[in-house]
Amino acid sequence: MKLRLEFEIIGLIYTPFETKEGMPIQSCYSNEKGRIGIFPEYSAGLKDLDNFSHVYLIYFFHKAQEKKLTVHPYLDSNPRGIFSTRAPIRPNPIGISIVKLENIDHSKAKLWVEGVDMLNKTPLLDIKPYVPHFDHRDATTGWISKSNYKITDSHISDDRF
Amino acid sequence: MKLRLEFEIIGLIYTPFETKEGMPIQSCYSNEKGRIGIFPEYSAGLKDLDNFSHVYLIYFFHKAQEKKLTVHPYLDSNPRGIFSTRAPIRPNPIGISIVKLENIDHSKAKLWVEGVDMLNKTPLLDIKPYVPHFDHRDATTGWISKSNYKITDSHISDDRF
Repeated sequence: MKLRLEFEIIGLIYTPFETKEGMPIQSCYSNEKGRIGIFPEYSAGLKDLDNFSHVYLIYFFHKAQEKKLTVHPYLDSNPRGIFSTRAPIRPNPIGISIVKLENIDHSKAKLWVEGVDMLNKTPLLDIKPYVPHFDHRDATTGWISKSNYKITDSHISDDRF
Repeated sequence: MKLRLEFEIIGLIYTPFETKEGMPIQSCYSNEKGRIGIFPEYSAGLKDLDNFSHVYLIYFFHKAQEKKLTVHPYLDSNPRGIFSTRAPIRPNPIGISIVKLENIDHSKAKLWVEGVDMLNKTPLLDIKPYVPHFDHRDATTGWISKSNYKITDSHISDDRF
């Protein structure tokens, strides 16, 4: 039996990316600008978000049309378990990206951000403040550290997912 | 009109916290151990997660019984917009925590983690690898940086949410 939960779309993320090909695979590889439109019933929640330089966007991978438990990720040539990757075709197609917050228009419930790595009109589920003291860890990175692909190079996606 | 999305629970997070009172308010303030049981149909997705020292847990705040757009967060005495806080009583009660991955038993689909800050039997939605190169930003933190509460001190919750 699958236990299901229901969530609401709170807005849409507008980006320059109409197709997956050529899109940055992580927000750290992107300097592209995006715009977020929050639906009016949630706009009061944006109060006090000013002066946070970065936020987490939590969103729905709306073009992930299948779900797999093993994938060939961008940073490796071997198949990897889905939970050891950020690939969108996961049991719950939820994405998280850390973007730079450039401006907020509270009266129109709009945000302008930099570093987008998701498709145009991606449905947004949540915004949370990025707080280095909460969110930074020294960490080791399993198969990624052994990959032939340099993580520090820029990486863009093809149409595999 | 509210646009709704449906997600599946992929497992449960077992923690020492039966009530909200006394629980760390962020995983960075916790050294408590937890155990995660992944439902058998998702266990293949855990492959290759070994040797990642930290993971993101994405989960459902199952005891958040209301939704508010303004809250009194733990680190401030003023009301703040929900999206500038991590409070659970948000439009979509989705939580994210970065925990230390201590062990995986693939045959039983169980994980042992350190740094839990969620209630016992919290429904899990996703696991993603934590990758410092993807996830670290130098950032400013809005109202939190002006708060009377030192972010570097340890903080535990009461029953407000």
